[in-house]
Amino acid sequence: MSEQPMDGWFTEVFDQQGSAIALRVTEKLLDVTSPYQHLEVFETETHGRLMVLDGCVMLTDRDNFLYHEMMSHPVLFTHAAPKRVVIIGGGDCGTLREVLKHPGVEKVTQIDIDEEVTRAAERFFPTLVERNDDPRAELLFEDGVKWVDNCPDESIDVMIIDSTDPVGPAEGLFKTDFLARCHRILAPGGVMVQQSESPLYHTGTIIRELRRDMRAAGFDSVATLPFPQPTYPSGWWSCTLAGKGCDTATFRSNDADSADLALEYYSSALHQGALVLPPFMRRQLVE
Amino acid sequence: MSEQPMDGWFTEVFDQQGSAIALRVTEKLLDVTSPYQHLEVFETETHGRLMVLDGCVMLTDRDNFLYHEMMSHPVLFTHAAPKRVVIIGGGDCGTLREVLKHPGVEKVTQIDIDEEVTRAAERFFPTLVERNDDPRAELLFEDGVKWVDNCPDESIDVMIIDSTDPVGPAEGLFKTDFLARCHRILAPGGVMVQQSESPLYHTGTIIRELRRDMRAAGFDSVATLPFPQPTYPSGWWSCTLAGKGCDTATFRSNDADSADLALEYYSSALHQGALVLPPFMRRQLVE
Repeated sequence: MSEQPMDGWFTEVFDQQGSAIALRVTEKLLDVTSPYQHLEVFETETHGRLMVLDGCVMLTDRDNFLYHEMMSHPVLFTHAAPKRVVIIGGGDCGTLREVLKHPGVEKVTQIDIDEEVTRAAERFFPTLVERNDDPRAELLFEDGVKWVDNCPDESIDVMIIDSTDPVGPAEGLFKTDFLARCHRILAPGGVMVQQSESPLYHTGTIIRELRRDMRAAGFDSVATLPFPQPTYPSGWWSCTLAGKGCDTATFRSNDADSADLALEYYSSALHQGALVLPPFMRRQLVE
Repeated sequence: MSEQPMDGWFTEVFDQQGSAIALRVTEKLLDVTSPYQHLEVFETETHGRLMVLDGCVMLTDRDNFLYHEMMSHPVLFTHAAPKRVVIIGGGDCGTLREVLKHPGVEKVTQIDIDEEVTRAAERFFPTLVERNDDPRAELLFEDGVKWVDNCPDESIDVMIIDSTDPVGPAEGLFKTDFLARCHRILAPGGVMVQQSESPLYHTGTIIRELRRDMRAAGFDSVATLPFPQPTYPSGWWSCTLAGKGCDTATFRSNDADSADLALEYYSSALHQGALVLPPFMRRQLVE
């Protein structure tokens, strides 16, 4: 390949999309190869620290609030009264931190197959792990699919699938039968959420298929919420919620209004706005 | 500079932000230097054609609908009954096309200093110029600031400042006294809109200053609407509306609902959602 990335920059090429995003870096702080993936941490010039897994941007200090807030608060305010929460993936602990802001949550179990991600977050991203000592938090490092299989029926209120892209270690989390397994362990009224890639690039493919697969797995309600995420492909990202006897088109907006969770992006009004898809997405997602 | 862009890619480096966006290109279709700026058109692999001015992405076929719809429909549905519309800049004619979708508009004057941009759009972006033959459209190639100065008081309903960044030929369009000149030519109930850069990068600087300058110029109402724009810095962009005896926090939502304008991104619900700023923006924009 004749493509030589720029000196002094971390560049992620989105090959299928013919696009790339780059951040100027000043130092590489970590470079480890775990049994699962290649993990790097950089100091950037203007985006704080940058975590990279298998060459893909996972997060930067500067903009991870968008993703982590949107992967946690919409699903938690959609459930009527979430007490038992599970995060599959999410080893950087940013989603965990947001979930723990909800006082009604009694237990959060985070299951990431790769302990190195959490160790790197502890060393280099102190704000992301700042709530890890909360007694309601349980951190496990094992296969999330197996954990789900060993989990009793209807025992979970909210599931958050905070995975990498649907290749590599996270591939199994995007398969239809995994969604059926999630459906099994969710209690009636339960909700799950999965990151669902770019509205510009993936509406007619990954997002459409995920929504179809969620319905096929038994979920009776599905909602895709777009949000900005500057350091992910196209700078525009989405999460997709699926409800089990829970309407994902509505949420506890009064609670979201009155909660004082010290948020940067999410609000009740933003949730309401994000529930309305742009016309081009609506047309591509007609079921 | 040791930074060598990747072969086969068009790369735009956002130097102050320490970030960059790149698109894989297959052919350069145009390279001209006008009296005002350096204009290039590329064929990209996956984003259709790409127009570049002085090294900055102006638009691609694939994602320009976001910017052009948000620069036109929110301001037009905010005005009670817009008849006389002026576009300063906008030589690619994409905003003009959107404005002409509104049947109530009686005349639209587009004033771009650089005729080369429109000639390039005619050659390489046929969809953008597809409404240029509309008898309501007037295309002028002259200095927008001078045009405004020669325009009678209170004669315009809607002004759209569709400019490049606040450096180079567009610098004068970001100065306070230009806003006062716009205010003078707007009729009572008039509204203007200006592109206002990235919510992530510029909320505390350009956006904040523009809003302050708009109020200083006599506008009594200001609203900033964020929207995704994948090929602009951070992939997240904004426009800021200013009203002259017109409340920019409300709009003709029923008309927006019932209009059948063949849009991809804008809808009444999206407008409503975009009016609510994320908490981090609200905090930085407290006036």
